[in-house]
Amino acid sequence: MSLTVVGSIAFDAVETQTGSRDRLLGGSAVHFAIASSQFAETRVVGPVGDDFGEGEYAILRNRGVVTDDIEHVPGGKTFFWAGRYHRDINQRDTLQTDLNVFEDFAPKLSDASRAAEVLFLANIQPDLQREVREQCSSARFAAMDSMNLWIDIAHPSLVRTIGLVDCLILNDGELKQLTDEPNLIRAAHKALDMGPRVVIAKQGEYGSAMITRDGYFGITAFPTADIVEPTGAGDTFAGGLMGFLAAHEGEIDGGTLRRAMAYGTACASFNVEGFGSERLYELGRAEIDARVADLEQMTRF
Amino acid sequence: MSLTVVGSIAFDAVETQTGSRDRLLGGSAVHFAIASSQFAETRVVGPVGDDFGEGEYAILRNRGVVTDDIEHVPGGKTFFWAGRYHRDINQRDTLQTDLNVFEDFAPKLSDASRAAEVLFLANIQPDLQREVREQCSSARFAAMDSMNLWIDIAHPSLVRTIGLVDCLILNDGELKQLTDEPNLIRAAHKALDMGPRVVIAKQGEYGSAMITRDGYFGITAFPTADIVEPTGAGDTFAGGLMGFLAAHEGEIDGGTLRRAMAYGTACASFNVEGFGSERLYELGRAEIDARVADLEQMTRF
Repeated sequence: MSLTVVGSIAFDAVETQTGSRDRLLGGSAVHFAIASSQFAETRVVGPVGDDFGEGEYAILRNRGVVTDDIEHVPGGKTFFWAGRYHRDINQRDTLQTDLNVFEDFAPKLSDASRAAEVLFLANIQPDLQREVREQCSSARFAAMDSMNLWIDIAHPSLVRTIGLVDCLILNDGELKQLTDEPNLIRAAHKALDMGPRVVIAKQGEYGSAMITRDGYFGITAFPTADIVEPTGAGDTFAGGLMGFLAAHEGEIDGGTLRRAMAYGTACASFNVEGFGSERLYELGRAEIDARVADLEQMTRF
Repeated sequence: MSLTVVGSIAFDAVETQTGSRDRLLGGSAVHFAIASSQFAETRVVGPVGDDFGEGEYAILRNRGVVTDDIEHVPGGKTFFWAGRYHRDINQRDTLQTDLNVFEDFAPKLSDASRAAEVLFLANIQPDLQREVREQCSSARFAAMDSMNLWIDIAHPSLVRTIGLVDCLILNDGELKQLTDEPNLIRAAHKALDMGPRVVIAKQGEYGSAMITRDGYFGITAFPTADIVEPTGAGDTFAGGLMGFLAAHEGEIDGGTLRRAMAYGTACASFNVEGFGSERLYELGRAEIDARVADLEQMTRF
């Protein structure tokens, strides 16, 4: 099935305790697409500025990502984010966020992107997510992410958008914040009441959990001793998950969603092994399959 | 196999947002034994005061716990702990800790307790844990817990004690603190370097992970929407785990340890459904088995 993602396309400057990069290709839609394109052709919708050049397009196209709906804003600058990771790499400080071309972004989808059967609304303002969802009315499976900022300042809009998707993917802390409910299971059920049939809680280094009306699935994160740089791990998780679903023929049932979460987990584990999505640039599907098999072995009892 | 646990026996006063209890039977050895006795006869070693009466003994004996090595200190008062849980029940404040008879505790094991083949050193001062380990020299499988206090004030002694057990069971944050290593996998391997062949990280609401030289196993917590009161969940986890191992005939291999973790997870999930260990007082083995079967179903993909 065809897959469209709307979200940010960015340059990231990151520092860890052991290295730094000034200008990494990043952004939620990019991290997502680098992973999802392992499984299914992915169309990226998002704005870039004059500083986004052939080198960046080449990275995406090399993975088979369709870049036709990347909107070049003449005279503009690409979204920029800078952050610094602590010794505990689960902690970071944001040093700078320049929205740049993202400030006036109004998503314009081509017919091909509108026709997507699988749609991911990466973390952008929820009104924009809803516009895209409405343009993509034929999507058989739509999922979305969000963040604490929108929960704080655009809660009613966010709730309306959640009502239009099949699957909500949030950090567990955000899910609790969204629903004002400190227990994860109750929080997830409150989120299900908003409309989706699937709620997935990303739990960082611990793994992730899927909650539906009639079931629960929990999977550990892949154990990684040497985490290089984790930016985009959550979007990579979503990319692996949604890419797997887009490549799946037939009904998206519980078993398919569980397997998709394992694929998302595997992709995220490669993401943290390098800066940005670099570890996934030349990754082969066989390596991902092997890691999913490892995860299966690591969770059986 | 016979099972001995040494640790605290206490009265707890706890407040949650929905209820409170003034005088709950608690303490690490008690929570442990209430769970482990589901699987194997358990001998409890620890001190109590004059306020520890027939009612408390009856609760333990009703579960088949052997209380011969509970040391009554005449004129003394039983260990007392008071705490208050927040709306987010993963957060709590300690309001009071009175060591009482625990202050001068010197473990004296009967021959029967010394002969244990499986030994659990619940969270007490690491010198005391080591004394017990040395008295119980025939134990085929010994495990221990500890806490941030001992990591802070008795690090060298704690490390020596860790060197004498087969299995270290700690909260993941404590494991990171013990080894001054923020990455869980690296922390666990540093702990393995201290001597044990198995390290188990308790991850609270997220579940737990087992790390050995050649393997990793991760299991989700059982999803519970209505957590009544979680005191002792970690000791209950250890009790289910160690009880399962004590009931196991033959070698304690990786598969056995994984199943034991599932049993620990199931027992802990019952613990949080009531105040103290109350939910386990009348629990049947069939209910635990059913929950382990549920966990198996919730983790398969």
